[in-house]
Amino acid sequence: MSAPANPDPARIALLTDFGNGEYAGIMRGVLAGLAPSTMVIDLSHQVAPQAVLSAAYVLFSAWDYFPRGTVFCAVVDPGVGSGRELLFAESGGRSLVAPDNGIVSLLARFKADLRCSRLRPPPGPAAPSGPSATFHGRDIFAPAAALAARGESNRLRGEAIQPILDAQALPEASTSSGRKTGRILHIDRFGNCVSALHRLDIEEYGDPERLSVSAGLFRTAGLKSHYAQVESGQTLAYLGSAGFLEIAVREGHAARLLKLGLGDKVVVAAAGSEKEPENRNPAQLNRSPREK
Amino acid sequence: MSAPANPDPARIALLTDFGNGEYAGIMRGVLAGLAPSTMVIDLSHQVAPQAVLSAAYVLFSAWDYFPRGTVFCAVVDPGVGSGRELLFAESGGRSLVAPDNGIVSLLARFKADLRCSRLRPPPGPAAPSGPSATFHGRDIFAPAAALAARGESNRLRGEAIQPILDAQALPEASTSSGRKTGRILHIDRFGNCVSALHRLDIEEYGDPERLSVSAGLFRTAGLKSHYAQVESGQTLAYLGSAGFLEIAVREGHAARLLKLGLGDKVVVAAAGSEKEPENRNPAQLNRSPREK
Amino acid sequence: MSAPANPDPARIALLTDFGNGEYAGIMRGVLAGLAPSTMVIDLSHQVAPQAVLSAAYVLFSAWDYFPRGTVFCAVVDPGVGSGRELLFAESGGRSLVAPDNGIVSLLARFKADLRCSRLRPPPGPAAPSGPSATFHGRDIFAPAAALAARGESNRLRGEAIQPILDAQALPEASTSSGRKTGRILHIDRFGNCVSALHRLDIEEYGDPERLSVSAGLFRTAGLKSHYAQVESGQTLAYLGSAGFLEIAVREGHAARLLKLGLGDKVVVAAAGSEKEPENRNPAQLNRSPREK
Repeated sequence: MSAPANPDPARIALLTDFGNGEYAGIMRGVLAGLAPSTMVIDLSHQVAPQAVLSAAYVLFSAWDYFPRGTVFCAVVDPGVGSGRELLFAESGGRSLVAPDNGIVSLLARFKADLRCSRLRPPPGPAAPSGPSATFHGRDIFAPAAALAARGESNRLRGEAIQPILDAQALPEASTSSGRKTGRILHIDRFGNCVSALHRLDIEEYGDPERLSVSAGLFRTAGLKSHYAQVESGQTLAYLGSAGFLEIAVREGHAARLLKLGLGDKVVVAAAGSEKEPENRNPAQLNRSPREK
Repeated sequence: MSAPANPDPARIALLTDFGNGEYAGIMRGVLAGLAPSTMVIDLSHQVAPQAVLSAAYVLFSAWDYFPRGTVFCAVVDPGVGSGRELLFAESGGRSLVAPDNGIVSLLARFKADLRCSRLRPPPGPAAPSGPSATFHGRDIFAPAAALAARGESNRLRGEAIQPILDAQALPEASTSSGRKTGRILHIDRFGNCVSALHRLDIEEYGDPERLSVSAGLFRTAGLKSHYAQVESGQTLAYLGSAGFLEIAVREGHAARLLKLGLGDKVVVAAAGSEKEPENRNPAQLNRSPREK
Repeated sequence: MSAPANPDPARIALLTDFGNGEYAGIMRGVLAGLAPSTMVIDLSHQVAPQAVLSAAYVLFSAWDYFPRGTVFCAVVDPGVGSGRELLFAESGGRSLVAPDNGIVSLLARFKADLRCSRLRPPPGPAAPSGPSATFHGRDIFAPAAALAARGESNRLRGEAIQPILDAQALPEASTSSGRKTGRILHIDRFGNCVSALHRLDIEEYGDPERLSVSAGLFRTAGLKSHYAQVESGQTLAYLGSAGFLEIAVREGHAARLLKLGLGDKVVVAAAGSEKEPENRNPAQLNRSPREK
């Protein structure tokens, strides 16, 4: 019954908020035992603690760049030990084991073939005394990923479900034409702020160089295509490497300099839209990089 | 003479305080050359600098989760370049190369089959000009781990020894019945504080929900089983994923909020024990997470 | 024409300033798809953001410790998206794909067999819509490294070039005999400061124990060979594990305590040289570790 649904060699890609310390390391140890011939790849362990939307962004931005056959094992899990449900998701020859907490919010928007099932955790947990209440990465998700990597996804796949989706992963419903608002989903290691606004959300507005973008203290006219188009210390907006609108400071840390955080709003307005975004405090803008 | 003592495929698990930078990377390069077919797994490089007891805890917490055949290569080595001795340890089909500095303190307590030998460093060091005085991870421990992974542990195993053990890894001798004290061995990435008190140390006290736990500013009645049993920002004590008593703040950083550090004391008292732990400053407790 | 120039099994070693987050992870995903049987090794992702000379040091310090056949993929790339050129370099059976921005400055000094070519990026980038302007690690360098690892370096190798070299990687031209000055190239995770002065630069001065070394607030007489030769909290200078003069504080963070940064000058003077380095503020020296 476990048909060879997956002719691609399996890999397991780890995505957690554990940091690069011992928790990720112990998961790798469990996987080395349960799926000894499977390559384990660290996607990231640097998701901000319990930032599910940030993990949803990282997962989506990586999905197509990992080969078919990859099993993503994502453990950003504020509800560990409570009654939260488990998820098994599949799209494009790749799969995911994770808590069902909104982590597929972006995949669900962009991947028409996404199929979600309740994850049935594998019977024999790794822990001698059963799964712990605090380390399901080790006791549930790593064993489940190992099972999927061994081609036994059908033992994990429960009934089809509608996964939990977080509305903050989507652009907000517009109240005025020519403007769209999206939340900051993710802040990367350089302080660049990734919003929920995708290229597809703003292409109706025409020439990207004539858009205006605002977020917190920041306001700019026109999207750029790379950092070197502005001076050191200047702010810029552009479509990032995953297709989402990002805000950065050249050679600076945008989140700190512009006081932006996860969940803050970013507004894009088309040229000539009826109402310009307000300019909160232009004197504060474009600080020198010395202030980092 | 190099009998196939190890039918399990070898892996090397790295445990250092080097951070995830170039020092760990160069060790991986050396291992790729000396043990080209061996999988190298990062257990952790985030041990606090020179915190041997913290490394002892991480090593113990990971030991059984790595497959048989794993060679742990642990380099937390405040004495590098001085006359400190080297250690080769074995238990349960796994082995360890490390400085002899207390890193097996927890293994020695819980693994009856632990055998320790003086490590004889392999003859030909990787460095063209002999081992450096400051980077034994590259020049001594990685080559030794590679040798063990190639099944040649007998070339490493010197005379049997009693390894150095650190008394701080054990609960303190009790002066009153119904109370036990253990040091904080490890603080994890979330700020959770892991003590030297194991489930076995307190099971004689009966119902965990009736114990009291104190450490620094923190005091609580009753162990919890998972974070969601308290409100956000509240402190809790519980038996962690390796079986040791931990102190945490839900969605907060316990070490910072409660001003706890490595080596601080944690006291457990049975319900009705003759003397309650003192309550240093209850007004300071259970701060809101805003104060992080 | 793609002769088996490389009989050693290929590995890819990653060196970036991306941190250990999703950017490095996505590069690993791309490599798993394009070079599925190649071992990918993280040399470091902790290079200080855009610190090309620091990357040049790490690359050089690791080069000979990785096995022949290793393809280094180095992405520290302040000029991404601008017109900077690409580099393919080879020495001692190992190769490098990187931006041409000074990253081979130390290899060029010490490796007589270093050959540099213009890198011709592989035709079919991984990104569906062509290479992004901001993530060449994913879209250009990882695909190029995969091609080299598959033995097709001749498709990458363009015309021979003189690579960009940064004069700051070399000792400064001396104005007085008996003294040499070099910049701080790299600060490691422990705060140790690595200078551009190599063992070869100072061996003409004779007995290392009679040299004097100064940098910022720090001044010392005599090189040490290991940390344990000074007390905790004391500063010392020594030849580090890659042969360069380093400044450290035992059990302390030298860069912070001595207020040293990348690019600062370190001066070595031979015993009896006509002019001693000035002693800026001896009262500030050798602070206790409490001040960290």
